[in-house]
Amino acid sequence: MRHVISALVRNKPGVLARVAGLFSARGFNIESLAVGETEDPDVSRMTVVVPGDDAILEQVRKQLSKLVDTIRVQDFRDTPCVVRDLMLVKVKTTSAKRTEVCTIAEVFGANILDMAEKAVILELTGDQDKLARFVKMLNPFGIVEMMRTGRVAMARTE
Amino acid sequence: MRHVISALVRNKPGVLARVAGLFSARGFNIESLAVGETEDPDVSRMTVVVPGDDAILEQVRKQLSKLVDTIRVQDFRDTPCVVRDLMLVKVKTTSAKRTEVCTIAEVFGANILDMAEKAVILELTGDQDKLARFVKMLNPFGIVEMMRTGRVAMARTE
Repeated sequence: MRHVISALVRNKPGVLARVAGLFSARGFNIESLAVGETEDPDVSRMTVVVPGDDAILEQVRKQLSKLVDTIRVQDFRDTPCVVRDLMLVKVKTTSAKRTEVCTIAEVFGANILDMAEKAVILELTGDQDKLARFVKMLNPFGIVEMMRTGRVAMARTE
Repeated sequence: MRHVISALVRNKPGVLARVAGLFSARGFNIESLAVGETEDPDVSRMTVVVPGDDAILEQVRKQLSKLVDTIRVQDFRDTPCVVRDLMLVKVKTTSAKRTEVCTIAEVFGANILDMAEKAVILELTGDQDKLARFVKMLNPFGIVEMMRTGRVAMARTE
């Protein structure tokens, strides 16, 4: 089981170290972490994905809430939400295989960011399942490099 | 000036705490941080964006390289690369304004992830400039919530 937890924190030096220290001291695993800007330049949002049961989620929530620079903690257990991750993937291509790779990209709604003789860079956003299926389709061509931003989540509007 | 630094690190508990501690102890600011999966399940990629001059970049590179769990550090100062960030933004809409918001989304190549009576959730990927221009166009409608994953970078193929 995986939980997505999102914390609004003050944009100050040392905040990330405190959050990371908290996770490390308690042995909480982190599957992905995204720290990015929000609508307020003084506030960052950290979105953490942690594997574990509801007890782990409760502990992480509580510990995060206790930090002085935390403004708000939100989990999405009971909230309808969109969860998205951005993946960049560099795939080997030859002139014979290029069209096939581009067709797969098109079907998945991926963007082609770079094309060279020997490889293309594709960009795809989506949930875990979609990204996994995309990687599976590209594997036979040869994946040179793959990276993901880590997930972010936003509650749907009621 | 901003630098994008990417580190491949072993996927172990405590690695993030060590990296964050290093930044905090030396007073390096972090503008964004993305920690996500790679093609190897035992390896994560951390992409850090740090403001500062070339001396700062050199220091960050060196310090990161010294950590035992670091496999490789890469900066993109002299490398042609693609840099992307994923943004989710919830925008207020009324039935009168909805079409206008959707047209802006279409022009920017944004995806509409959720639509309700009072708000829509849009998703856009791109570089800093594009995301900033998108936010500027949406501001007059009322931004309820905005979040970004933090940037990731990939070298173009030669």
